[in-house]
Amino acid sequence: MDPRFDPITAPDRTAADAARARQATLTKPAGALGRLEDASVWMSGVQGACPPAAFEHPAVVIFAGDHGVARSAGTSAYPPEVTAQMVGNFVAGGAAANVLARQVGATVRVVDVSVDADPAYLDALDPQVASRRVRRGSGSIDREDAMSPAELDAALALGRDLADAEIAAGADVLIAGDMGIGNTTPAAALVALLTGQSAAEVTGRGTGVDDTTLARKVATVQAAVERAGETDDDALEAVRRCGGPDIAAMVAFLLHAAARRTPVILDGIVSCSAALAASRVDPDAVSWWVAGHRSTEPAASTALTALGLVPLIDLGLRLGEGTGALLAIPMLNAAATTLAEMATFDSAGVSDRPADA
Amino acid sequence: MDPRFDPITAPDRTAADAARARQATLTKPAGALGRLEDASVWMSGVQGACPPAAFEHPAVVIFAGDHGVARSAGTSAYPPEVTAQMVGNFVAGGAAANVLARQVGATVRVVDVSVDADPAYLDALDPQVASRRVRRGSGSIDREDAMSPAELDAALALGRDLADAEIAAGADVLIAGDMGIGNTTPAAALVALLTGQSAAEVTGRGTGVDDTTLARKVATVQAAVERAGETDDDALEAVRRCGGPDIAAMVAFLLHAAARRTPVILDGIVSCSAALAASRVDPDAVSWWVAGHRSTEPAASTALTALGLVPLIDLGLRLGEGTGALLAIPMLNAAATTLAEMATFDSAGVSDRPADA
Repeated sequence: MDPRFDPITAPDRTAADAARARQATLTKPAGALGRLEDASVWMSGVQGACPPAAFEHPAVVIFAGDHGVARSAGTSAYPPEVTAQMVGNFVAGGAAANVLARQVGATVRVVDVSVDADPAYLDALDPQVASRRVRRGSGSIDREDAMSPAELDAALALGRDLADAEIAAGADVLIAGDMGIGNTTPAAALVALLTGQSAAEVTGRGTGVDDTTLARKVATVQAAVERAGETDDDALEAVRRCGGPDIAAMVAFLLHAAARRTPVILDGIVSCSAALAASRVDPDAVSWWVAGHRSTEPAASTALTALGLVPLIDLGLRLGEGTGALLAIPMLNAAATTLAEMATFDSAGVSDRPADA
Repeated sequence: MDPRFDPITAPDRTAADAARARQATLTKPAGALGRLEDASVWMSGVQGACPPAAFEHPAVVIFAGDHGVARSAGTSAYPPEVTAQMVGNFVAGGAAANVLARQVGATVRVVDVSVDADPAYLDALDPQVASRRVRRGSGSIDREDAMSPAELDAALALGRDLADAEIAAGADVLIAGDMGIGNTTPAAALVALLTGQSAAEVTGRGTGVDDTTLARKVATVQAAVERAGETDDDALEAVRRCGGPDIAAMVAFLLHAAARRTPVILDGIVSCSAALAASRVDPDAVSWWVAGHRSTEPAASTALTALGLVPLIDLGLRLGEGTGALLAIPMLNAAATTLAEMATFDSAGVSDRPADA
């Protein structure tokens, strides 16, 4: 076990078993609520209570970072300046994640992990945002490591502290959102490196690149994977070489949430790539996570398959920011409230089917 | 046009076009909110306003009915007595639909259209529930018509009046839920009859029948379709022969909602079979409907494909009652609020991508 991370214990099996048993007593055919029933069992386990409570204090942390490849290899449809501008949009409450967070009572915190912008610009928005910046942009992963070992450690410490801060503030579920022009490139490279899938299989159009840019992006991912080479099953070294500080911070955030027995809803490709890396550090973390949605990015599905997770929402989203995870909250809360509030066959005087049917 | 139905006008194209144009100005890559963007355009059209409002007054009407085939052919895992018991559960607020309705501020009204139970039993629960009952159970469709022409007319009038009642009570969106042991059998037969699909293709396990019962159910659907024979493109005659009074009332409810310019969220197989029949009465009705979820019942997917609708939720539900439609409401409201509340590139000072990217 890596000394930088705390041990992770399993969710409460007794509560999960009680949820499964309670589902069978509710006034509906067995299994008729489909995957909501599985979700209610998961929520009972991670909360250690049956029935579980609805999530009322979700916390989104948006890990903002720029990526050298976006500038050097031109793998995004947007200029890198947009990352800092979008940080401002999150602070002002105008981004999609802010709107969806308000709908479910979630808080949104945006953190500059590795934005490639003048810190004064971000300080003017909010002095907290950039106070722990790890570095300005990441190395262009097709030709150099994303960060140094010291920067990796700083990013991991930041992610851990952010999980602690949200839990201290009363969060009952965490979401790791992302913002960073070009960030689907390192995420895809990381998934390819960790799963052995080819660059062509995992690389998608991100925010909407054209065919020419997509071809360049595949070549960039391929170059990054080849350059990273063998990492001897060291997922953190893989993140250091071909991920980014934002992804590294997410890895620690996801692991520390699990160590703190706090559930997480995974979001899109960046969140899923970090989860995949985190699962290689400690496979026990996965039982604390649920997949919020299926991004259109192929690497997100590759990572979810490797994690053994099936997403709740599949609406063709490809925005990141935590938006897909936020949309899953009403589904999770529906799972909790049906388990908590539905009448049982006994209480409602409804006949259960004969045992031999 | 059938004189029993009012003419249906199209949703507001100007508002829908404005929604599409507004989506392009919001601080996100074009199309990044996936099918939420399509939903926002639909909501603008049916509300005649851009941006649209979130649905705050959804109304679920649960059409309860028993089906002769459940008793005579044994096509369900549950005894027919459960239908009346579940009507009591809805009145008491203990069913899944009640719980999910509370989560989104929806009202639930249950109506005995054709329950096979002593009316005194239902009157004791609530004197309104059975006041317009069309008949006690339906004919066993493998050997006789589901109802007479006069009963069809009574069911259609009931469905229309129910839509009027909910709209008068302030509903901003309607859901037609179902409750009836054995009701997936006539729904599957109706879909087979209207689409030409085989009984084996459209018939599913309903509330969870075993292989032997499934084989008997397929044979029953097949017998019903053969007995119904040619209906000369008269979808209402198809409903009369091999549907049921509950389905007939739903058909009128769905058509009258469209005539009253009130949107509808479709639910599972029974709701979708009624929608398919209604679309054959007036194809213009379809633009007033959105598909809430994909039921595990094959006939539901067959009907949705025929209607050209793609569901928002796909969680393996097979409960009916309006539950799948209720789960879609947070998604629709997310579509409306992102369109309404997100910052634009201009207002947030975020760079849009270059026109040539």
